[in-house]
Amino acid sequence: MSDQQEAPKRAAARRPGRRPGGADTRGAVLEAARAEFGARGYDKASMRGIARVAGVDAALLHHYFGSKEQLFLAALDFPIDPAAVVELIMDGEREQMGERLVRFMLTLWSQPEILDRLLAVLRTAVGSEQIAALLRDFMVRELVVRLAAELDLENPELRAELVLSQILGLAVARYVLRAEPIASATADDLVPLLAPTFQRYLVGPVG
Amino acid sequence: MSDQQEAPKRAAARRPGRRPGGADTRGAVLEAARAEFGARGYDKASMRGIARVAGVDAALLHHYFGSKEQLFLAALDFPIDPAAVVELIMDGEREQMGERLVRFMLTLWSQPEILDRLLAVLRTAVGSEQIAALLRDFMVRELVVRLAAELDLENPELRAELVLSQILGLAVARYVLRAEPIASATADDLVPLLAPTFQRYLVGPVG
Repeated sequence: MSDQQEAPKRAAARRPGRRPGGADTRGAVLEAARAEFGARGYDKASMRGIARVAGVDAALLHHYFGSKEQLFLAALDFPIDPAAVVELIMDGEREQMGERLVRFMLTLWSQPEILDRLLAVLRTAVGSEQIAALLRDFMVRELVVRLAAELDLENPELRAELVLSQILGLAVARYVLRAEPIASATADDLVPLLAPTFQRYLVGPVG
Repeated sequence: MSDQQEAPKRAAARRPGRRPGGADTRGAVLEAARAEFGARGYDKASMRGIARVAGVDAALLHHYFGSKEQLFLAALDFPIDPAAVVELIMDGEREQMGERLVRFMLTLWSQPEILDRLLAVLRTAVGSEQIAALLRDFMVRELVVRLAAELDLENPELRAELVLSQILGLAVARYVLRAEPIASATADDLVPLLAPTFQRYLVGPVG
């Protein structure tokens, strides 16, 4: 149980504090990252290109942000690390994948700061085709492809995207529409209904 | 098969043409309806109140729009009639409910004019808490409560809202994010994966 409570903290992207590079450098890097991601898309933007636009050394950028994924999370103030979510889903009993995912999501969304940032990203994506495309490329590359690689079934990408679609829809129903009873439903209410959905998308038919 | 192709046409809300009341009267009624729905919400707004604001006879309003639901559909340019969707889901083999729903949605969304209007409603709801609340009350009253009344299981409202959530999420993944392969997946691709999800929400465990 304590494992399940700790896991969402690992998957929540940390909001890095001030870095040794100084606030100005960090601001310039994030601005350059937003510009490059916006102009080139997630797949084509590169750490090297962002470093050049920001006027900093590429090695320094790697040192402070680790990867393009991490830089993207920081630049878009995106509160979830998809790579960590995939790890969390896959790490543990195969029979419990669906339940782990439901409990993870609800724990994450119960944190107002994380929820607010997620909803801000959703609003921006719904309002802007460019941001929607950027977010899609990021989610496909860092969540769908990673998750699909772990699935031993036909159509793994489609299955991974159906998982994503049910997560998105749950978020819209709970936090945009705020429809009752789904908006106030607890993990214990939702697990019996939702866990088998994720389990079937991820693992196949459930008896 | 021809039944399945006809059904979405019935569930698609017709866009009424000019009515005998005249274009000015119709415009005034729709404006009054938007104002009243916006100010009072779906449940508290009344045909009588809307008629008064529009300066028309309440009986005339009923004659031309039939019901509060129909007036709402016209005022918000909402392209789907939830009552007809519920009928469509319930009308036919119980074992095929999930598949009927998947094929219905995809047929509906394949019509660009309907899809555009749905996405416009979604964008407005995501951008405005007032519209989100109005849309929620409408969907709960006209879709969730109606559908739940047909379900012979525990938590029927939660189940109906999970159906709605998977529909919303599929729409966001396909038409907002436009993630592949889900964006181009056909009914035949999606039925084997999605139909059991809806079937389980609506009818209970599927073997």
